[in-house]
Amino acid sequence: MQKGLLIVISGASGTGKGTVCKKLIGELPTLFYSISATTRQPRAGETDGVEYFFITVDEFKNWIAEGKFLEYAEVYGNFYGTPIHKIEERLNRGEDVILEIDIQGALNVMKKRPDGVYIFLLPPSLEELKNRIQGRGTESQESFERRFKAAADEIATGKKYQYVVVNDKVDAAVEKIKMILAAERCKVQRNENLFENLL
Amino acid sequence: MQKGLLIVISGASGTGKGTVCKKLIGELPTLFYSISATTRQPRAGETDGVEYFFITVDEFKNWIAEGKFLEYAEVYGNFYGTPIHKIEERLNRGEDVILEIDIQGALNVMKKRPDGVYIFLLPPSLEELKNRIQGRGTESQESFERRFKAAADEIATGKKYQYVVVNDKVDAAVEKIKMILAAERCKVQRNENLFENLL
Repeated sequence: MQKGLLIVISGASGTGKGTVCKKLIGELPTLFYSISATTRQPRAGETDGVEYFFITVDEFKNWIAEGKFLEYAEVYGNFYGTPIHKIEERLNRGEDVILEIDIQGALNVMKKRPDGVYIFLLPPSLEELKNRIQGRGTESQESFERRFKAAADEIATGKKYQYVVVNDKVDAAVEKIKMILAAERCKVQRNENLFENLL
Repeated sequence: MQKGLLIVISGASGTGKGTVCKKLIGELPTLFYSISATTRQPRAGETDGVEYFFITVDEFKNWIAEGKFLEYAEVYGNFYGTPIHKIEERLNRGEDVILEIDIQGALNVMKKRPDGVYIFLLPPSLEELKNRIQGRGTESQESFERRFKAAADEIATGKKYQYVVVNDKVDAAVEKIKMILAAERCKVQRNENLFENLL
């Protein structure tokens, strides 16, 4: 049996990672969405255990000490981490696991798991990125400016990924990601067993 | 503008390369099918300039001397070669080019063009491979046995490719190849211009 795909969706702030992942999961219900932990405050409408596990800095440090993270990073003064819990178990069962993580986190996972599928989302333009960050309306002006500047810097990091998808229309971006996943399942190194069974 | 994809479809004898490529070209009419040259005799129903350019050994040697081949190889005592003519021109115009070539030829192209998309077709089973080679009915018994033994040996070479597709049902194989091509167009190294335009 083929192992599941470890799919990492990443991109600068405001490129719509969350929306794309939500739609993707809706269309591929067997996909296991690995929920990140963070020490940042929940935004309006966010629920603990749904978008994130919202934990305190002390709890976060305990999780680090207990080896509970595949990766973690500090972003804009808050901690974000990917709990390793259940990821390997699901991959070994042949189930795909999707991680929606920031760029620092993704680069950390890349080092540990070169067999992952790394997809970088790009905004259609910097103007659109600005609109999206502002439109979110959850940021102070200072926080917005810091986030926008960082986002523009972060975009260049996308060249370290395997795939890039412009998130102009969510449906089109999701379709492209689905085709990337289908192609990845055809990669020779994921199909050693096909050769063994034949020969 | 993104350069076209150089697509190499290969596989052991009798895995149905020709059928898969014909269907693929029918569905993607902008795909440029690069016709190979060979010194082998045409089979029943084959036309010069359609399946192959059928040329003499002397002509083949002249083409080699004139640098007209991207690659060439001797297979089962016959020469096969990929004329380079028009390939680069079309790729630079953003058009995809498909090469249906034998394994030796594909491995040669791989060295020269690491940016190509290398897809290996597998038969669903060795029994099915045997049936297909026999069913073709164009081979002497000796030729058949040599070809079948070589095909089984060749299958292991498929591990050097990027992608593997089992040609169980032609339609399904073609769908997978189309998804591989879509995914390849999302590869970061094919989209440097996206980053430059944004930043």
